[in-house]
Formats: sequence, structure tokens, C-alpha cells
Amino acid sequence: MLKIALAQINLLVGGIDANKSKIVQIAEQARDHDSADLIVFPELCVTGYPPEDLLLRADFIEQARVAVLQIAQAVKGIDIVLGFPEQDGDCLYNSAAVLSDGEISALYRKNALPNFGVFDEQRYFDSAEQTCLIHVRESTIALTICEDIWQKGLIEKNQQAGADIIVTLNASPFHAGKIHQREDIVCEQVKAANIPLVYVNMVGGQDELIFDGASFVVDSTGEIMFRAREFEEQVSVVEFVNNVPVKSSCAPLYNEISSEYKALVLGVKDYVYKNGFKGAILGLSGGIDSALVLAVAVDALGAGQVEAVLMPSKYTQDMSNEDAVLEAEALGIKHHTIAIEPAVSAFTEMLADTFAGTKKDTTEENIQARCRGVILMAMSNKQGKLLLTTGNKSEMSVGYATLYGDMAGGFAPIKDVPKLLVYQLAEYRNTLSAVIPERVITRPPSAELAPDQVDEDSLPPYSILDPILEMYVEQDKSAEEIQLAGYRVEDINRAISLVDRNEYKRRQAPPGIRITPRAFGRDRRYPITSGYRGVYKK
Amino acid sequence: MLKIALAQINLLVGGIDANKSKIVQIAEQARDHDSADLIVFPELCVTGYPPEDLLLRADFIEQARVAVLQIAQAVKGIDIVLGFPEQDGDCLYNSAAVLSDGEISALYRKNALPNFGVFDEQRYFDSAEQTCLIHVRESTIALTICEDIWQKGLIEKNQQAGADIIVTLNASPFHAGKIHQREDIVCEQVKAANIPLVYVNMVGGQDELIFDGASFVVDSTGEIMFRAREFEEQVSVVEFVNNVPVKSSCAPLYNEISSEYKALVLGVKDYVYKNGFKGAILGLSGGIDSALVLAVAVDALGAGQVEAVLMPSKYTQDMSNEDAVLEAEALGIKHHTIAIEPAVSAFTEMLADTFAGTKKDTTEENIQARCRGVILMAMSNKQGKLLLTTGNKSEMSVGYATLYGDMAGGFAPIKDVPKLLVYQLAEYRNTLSAVIPERVITRPPSAELAPDQVDEDSLPPYSILDPILEMYVEQDKSAEEIQLAGYRVEDINRAISLVDRNEYKRRQAPPGIRITPRAFGRDRRYPITSGYRGVYKK
Repeated sequence: MLKIALAQINLLVGGIDANKSKIVQIAEQARDHDSADLIVFPELCVTGYPPEDLLLRADFIEQARVAVLQIAQAVKGIDIVLGFPEQDGDCLYNSAAVLSDGEISALYRKNALPNFGVFDEQRYFDSAEQTCLIHVRESTIALTICEDIWQKGLIEKNQQAGADIIVTLNASPFHAGKIHQREDIVCEQVKAANIPLVYVNMVGGQDELIFDGASFVVDSTGEIMFRAREFEEQVSVVEFVNNVPVKSSCAPLYNEISSEYKALVLGVKDYVYKNGFKGAILGLSGGIDSALVLAVAVDALGAGQVEAVLMPSKYTQDMSNEDAVLEAEALGIKHHTIAIEPAVSAFTEMLADTFAGTKKDTTEENIQARCRGVILMAMSNKQGKLLLTTGNKSEMSVGYATLYGDMAGGFAPIKDVPKLLVYQLAEYRNTLSAVIPERVITRPPSAELAPDQVDEDSLPPYSILDPILEMYVEQDKSAEEIQLAGYRVEDINRAISLVDRNEYKRRQAPPGIRITPRAFGRDRRYPITSGYRGVYKK
Repeated sequence: MLKIALAQINLLVGGIDANKSKIVQIAEQARDHDSADLIVFPELCVTGYPPEDLLLRADFIEQARVAVLQIAQAVKGIDIVLGFPEQDGDCLYNSAAVLSDGEISALYRKNALPNFGVFDEQRYFDSAEQTCLIHVRESTIALTICEDIWQKGLIEKNQQAGADIIVTLNASPFHAGKIHQREDIVCEQVKAANIPLVYVNMVGGQDELIFDGASFVVDSTGEIMFRAREFEEQVSVVEFVNNVPVKSSCAPLYNEISSEYKALVLGVKDYVYKNGFKGAILGLSGGIDSALVLAVAVDALGAGQVEAVLMPSKYTQDMSNEDAVLEAEALGIKHHTIAIEPAVSAFTEMLADTFAGTKKDTTEENIQARCRGVILMAMSNKQGKLLLTTGNKSEMSVGYATLYGDMAGGFAPIKDVPKLLVYQLAEYRNTLSAVIPERVITRPPSAELAPDQVDEDSLPPYSILDPILEMYVEQDKSAEEIQLAGYRVEDINRAISLVDRNEYKRRQAPPGIRITPRAFGRDRRYPITSGYRGVYKK
């Protein structure tokens, strides 16, 4: 019998010392309490993933090398597989080290380096072509790393080389539906090669990315024999008898909406605490976006760590204030009310001479939003609490937001959540406990920056806007293709021209949590200066 | 005799229609007025460089393909070489097309795809291995693209394949000193392979990047036989007799300081006009940074397009206001004065309850800076003028700037200029005409956000800070290496810990012009959430 421990853990990018201690402690526990023969840690677990340009620092690479040797020395009596950046002469590899009896007994260097979407591995790493087989008890185990097994051929190659079991170290980021894609691809390849596989993923938030865990073991017929929980740390041992995995606990998969909500909660929690903030603060408008962000923040940090500020103006309806207070009270958080009128008046007077003879336009709306930004940032600065912005993906797409106003803040939890999904997530959250007043969900959305303003004055209805945006922003469809999908040219052109011209705003937006297959930021990298116009041309 | 035209032109990323018209017009002129046999345009000139994720759009790639065919049809009687993204099945190549008599007569696909520094070509392109020889009059010409000739071997391979002349299409971005590096590498390779080379670079600003032109022709001994001007468009014809280039005009190279200044001017001009702004606006403090940015803006756009705002507070010294007025008057620009006190007072009162019992800290300084940000953005919004920020690289490095305050704006001209270089550039500008008062250059720098504040209260002197930052930020040196270079551990640790912890501010900074070998932004990509601490550890 062979016992393999899967170490699905949450690591800190760049925090080599902290990661090392955690790895040592978990490996010792797997040896002493679970009698594991082998423990597998995620891809690049010594440095966290992705370390980005830290990988270009010689001191950082050296620190990682030393940490691996220290782990080997510290934990004997169990074989350890872990990921780290391995320098060899002028080459840097994304490697897995096998630690046995105090030393590195084998090394596997990642073959397939992803350089698309959120991945930039060819910026840092050299690719290798060798396979790596190790022997633990009676079994021959082949090592692979993440992208390797998304490419056809490597699992089969390892099986033909004599492997009994495939082990793969991963840093596979979440988006809605990704887990099915991941399991399907792995199971298909495993079946074709007729070999069982151990998949170890990391868990945790890192800037825009969420690693969702859900590590698993699949047998050679493609049946899932073990699955770790999504979005949580979990170290579990799976037994193999004659190289066949023994069925053990299989955590059920969350449905799409709950997995999205879990991802948001984990993302906020890890961004706040890994960056050393004491909690979070946000502006509560009585609208749906800030209501959802507040619920996520409280679920992530606890009511005691979250504070809300109501900042009404003369355009704020009474029901907005009432609902904001209801939300704060339902979640039991501290809240303040600071009316913005004195600051708005001050700026209006200060600018009166310069603006004499001009007409009112969005400038005056932006001043209101920016006064709120100043207040929130002052409170954030004074208390060391992270300011959360509350803009959603639909707004980020079309630039329906004020730079340095409602866009001011350190983290944007729902910036990758389209407006229609904001409603669904709010309704989902209310099924756990009713914290968002029904009226917030049913009233027409408004920025409340002008009299009787509603979003639909400036934008197509979200039921039309969101699908257009998904096709244009996430799927790179042309206006002509979107028109063929049944949308009006007028709506398409309105949406697309706004997306095209608002790249400058997105470039200065805070990072936020990626939950779709294509988020702004690391994922969709557009020039600001651009003559490209995606509008319908026929 | 063979006449080759070098088309060093300024293109618009994504502006395929505009680029196409320009290419057609210039090719016709080279044919009709200069009797050129062949005209060479830069790398990816049809799309501009770098098009970033526009390259993932099928409609964009198709538009580029059609444009190339239209250019071929439009201009007959001259051979044209130009760069474009070429789709072939599932592969996308960074290609050069040869257009002859209405059709594509040859294609060269870039062999070496840079994926470091500011380059991400492996994200988009597949690399090829074939060379491409074309025949024009009696000559055999080999095509190469940019990074190809920075790699050893390809020039020689082409020479051995029978090439008489190497032609290379480039999109080679500027940094101080780059031109010598570029000419040295090319001349060395050319000499080794004993073959002449035609180097065509693009010119112009694209977000953070400046393409500096300075196209050239070198003979087989490594002597420069022709050089186009730096930072300007120029189309010139070079004659070859028996495949030997005939000596013609060689534009002299600017010295380092003038090339940096020219780069800033070109960068501001192209960002403002390519993005459709009517001019620029900035806050003028009486300090050296805003003085330099103002001079650059006026040199780029003309005095009529630039507007300055003085925004004194109770901490602003009289000499600051006086000097700011002197600068505005010396450059002949419109200027306004708006004291920030009313807004600062309004916020102070609005926050009084919340802040009761707390001590003054940087929160109160940030409120002042953010009031200025609100005023400047209001003026920018109202007039459609781009707000320029005035922060330098030293400040960006250590986070000595206020998010949404002095960091508010669309473009940051000197964000890659270290403070000591700001002084040198100001002095250089004054040698052209005295526009920056002497006192601005000699007085100790201050943010004037607190009584009698000077930068050295919070930071090491710039004569110490700047070299430490260059080693840490640009050269990835460790604290230990910097200490060996002769700096005090206390200064090193102060600087490095500030750099480490201010990535979040830089991430929300506007883009600015890259003039060093390593700028923040596309060039130095660090995680925000990071446990890495670069401080001295021995």
C-alpha cells in the first residue's frame, strides 16, 4: 500500500520564510499523524504563484533554493514533492523537487509553459523536455506540472515510460465553470492513457487571482476517487493498493453561483489580511452593488472588521439612506453618515469663476463622486482599513464610474461581476440569511448624481448590455457577430464605443477578483492609445 | 544601382485605416519623387506597435490582412516591404509582406520573438524558422524583423544563403543610451558576416513607449552610411551600387540629456493628440517637477494648448506662488489661482466627529493633495484637456505621492525620470531659453503639505536615494550588493522598504514615458500582495 498526502494549502507570494515554515509543519504532520509515504505540494509553493518579476531577482531565486534545502533537512522520513523556481546556469525552470532523506533526490522541470490569458511563464522560465519518474515503495510515479497535463501527449508518454501513477502540481486559477473543464480534461487524458492521477492545486487569493483548491485523485477509468473542498485549505491522504486509488471522501462541488460567491469572499479575505490591513471600509449608497460588496466583506472579515459610510447628497433619495441603514444593521456593522454637501458647495464656489458661462455636464456629477472618494480615503488612511470599491464589471466595461470618485479604493471585489450577476449573487446571499432589503434588488439602478437619474438614461438595459459586453469583452466577438446574435446595432455601438474609449479608466482601477474566463487586468491587455473602433461597420 | 527608401514613420496602434492611407501615400511619393525600387516600412506598421490584445481579435487580424491587400493594389511600380500580423490556420506570425505589382510576392515570418522587458510577443505570435530572400533589380535581399538581429546567427545564415543586403523592420523602443547599444550590436554582426544592412525603425509615442527612429544603413565594414533623425518622421532614399551603400546624410546623435528631453516632448505630444485631447492642464506648485512638466508640455503642444492652475494652501510659501507665476509667464500660458482652503476646511469639519480624538498624520496631508486633484480633474473634465501629473520616478518608487491627489491625471510625463535627472533636464531646458526660475532649481524640494516640510524629513537625500533606487528597481540588486557599493544600511532599508510596500500606488498610477532601461508598468511587473522584503538581512 502507498499513502500519498495532497497538501492543498494557501501560500503567500514572495513570503518564502512563511511558506517554508508552513510546508515543514504540514509535511511533519502528514508523516507523523497520517503515516504518508509521499506528500505533494502545489506548483511553485515555495514562492507562491505567480511571483511575477520577483523571479528576475537573483536574491529571490537564491532564497527559494536555500528554503528547499532547509525543508529537505528539516523533514526526513517522508518523500516530499514541491514546486520552486530552479536556476541552472543561465536557465530558470519551473520545477518540482523531490526531497528524500535530507536532500533533493530528483527534479522535474515543467515542459509546457503557458503564456496566454493570465499566464506569463515564458517571460521567466525555460521549458524542458525530460520526464521524471520516481520510485516510492513499489510504485513508479511520474511528475508533471499544471499546463503539462492540459497538453496532449505527456500523460501517455509517462505511462509508456513505465509510470504507475501520475502526480501533478498545480496553481490553477478559478473562474466560473473552470473546475468542470479541469476535471473533464484530466479524466479524458487519464482514461486514454489508462493510468491514475493525483492532482494537487493551491488555494487562496493573490491580487486578481483565486486558486480554488478542489484537488482530486482520479483512477485509470476516469472516476473521481477523492476530492478536496473548494476554496479551503485541506491536507488529505489517499491510499493506493496495487497502484489503484482507494475511494475516499469526495467533497461535493458548489453550484456556479455559490462558487462565485465563495471566490469573492476568499478574495477579499486574502487581499485584506495578506496585505496587513486591519479591516475594510466602504461607501454604502443603498444600491445593489455596495450592498453585495458589504455582504461579501462581512462574510470574509467578520462584522467587527467592516465599517460603512453613508454619504448622501441632495440627489440621494430617502429610500437609499433607509436601505443602506437596514443593510448595515442587518449585518451588525458600524456605520457613519457624512453628507457631502459642504464639500460640493466649497468646490462649486472655488470653481465658479473658471466655470462661468459653461453648461452643467458630467463634471458636476464627478465632483460629487470625488468628494465621496476624499472622505472614504481619509477614513481609510486614518484607520488603516482597506477601502473597497463597489463598481461591477458592466460599469468597468463602459466606464460608468468616476476615476478617483467611486473608483477610489484599494480593492474592487466585484469588478469582474457583470450587473445581472450582481443581482443573482445578492439573491443567493439572501437565501443564506436576509441581509439585503428586497427594495434594493427590485428598484431601478441609479448613480444618484443628478435629479431622478437612472442607469438606463445613459446605457442600454443591463439585460441587453451584459450579453453584448460578454461577447465583445470576454469572447472578442465583432459587432457584426453580435448583431447576428440578435442585438440592435444601436445598442451594440453604444456599448462597444464606450468599452473602446474607457481603457484609460480601467488602467487606473484597483485590482479585483477574477471570476469570469476573461477579466480586465492581467487577462485583457489593451492599449490605451488606440485607433481601433469595434463598432458595426457594414 | 538600387534605391531603397527607409520609411521612418509615426503610426497609430489599432488605427489600421489611417495607417494604410499613410503607407500608400508615402510609398507613392517614394516611387514618384525618389524613384525608389524598394520601400521598407517598420515592423507591424499596419497595426502599429504594440497592438497588445487587439491581436487576439479575429476582426482586427482580418482588417489588417485586407489592408495589406489594398495597399498592394493601390501602389504598383515599387516593391514594398511592411510588417503586419499574419494569420495562417491556427498560427499567427509577426510577418513582413513583400508587395509587388498588386500582390503579396513573399512573406517573412519573424524567427525570434522577444518576451522580456516591455515585450510580450510569445503571448501572441508563433515563431518561424525560415529565412526569406527576395530579388530586387540585381540584388538579393534578406528580410529580418527586429529581435532577429539581436540574436547571433541569423545575419550570417542569410549571408550564407546568398543575401547581398540585410533589411530589417523594427519597432525598437527608446531608453537613454539604447541607440548606441542598437548600433553597436548591429555593426558587430554586420562586420562578422561582411554584409550591409538597412535598419528601419518606427517613430512616435505609444502609451509608455517611445520609438525613437534613428533608422540607419551600415556597410559591410560596420560604418554608418546613413542615419535618419531621432524622434522625427523621415523618409529617405539610400543608393546601393554593386550592393554597397553610398554615403549620404547622417543625422548626428543627440547627447543623452537632449535625447531624454526630446523623448518626453514626443511622448506628451503623441499621447495628447493620438487620444483626441484638446490640450493639457496641470497643477503648478512652484516646485521643480511641475516646472519641468510644464516646459515639456509647452514644447510638445504649444503655449496656447496648455493651462496651469496654482492651488496654494496655508503651507504654500510665497516664493512658490511667485515662481509658479514666473514660469507661466515665461512660457506665455494661461494660468489660474484657486486656493484650496475652503474645500480643506469643509472636509475637516465633515470628518471632525469621526476623527475626534485621533492625531494628525498623513491623512490630513492627503486631504490637501486630493482637494487639488478634484479641482484639476474638474477643469480637465470641463474643457476636454488632459490632466498631466507631475510626479517623478523617485517619488513613484518610494510612494511619496498621494493617490487621487497629485497622482490624479491621465498621463505622467516624468514618472520614469529620477529626481536628480529632473534637475538636469530643467537645467538643460533653461539652456534653450530661460523658463524655469533659478530659485526653483536651487531651493530644497518640498511637498508643502505641512509647516516647513522638506522631502529630506521623510526620505534620504536624493543624491543617496536615487542611486539606491536605480540599483534596486532597475538592476534588481539586493540590499547586500547595494551595501557593498558603499551605501548605509539605514538608507538602503528605508528606500527598499518603501519601494516594496508601495506597489499598490504604482498600480493605480497613470501611464508615463519610459526613458530608462526599466520603467514601472509594462517593464517591472510586481505583485501587490507580496511577502518579499528586500531589506538588508545580514
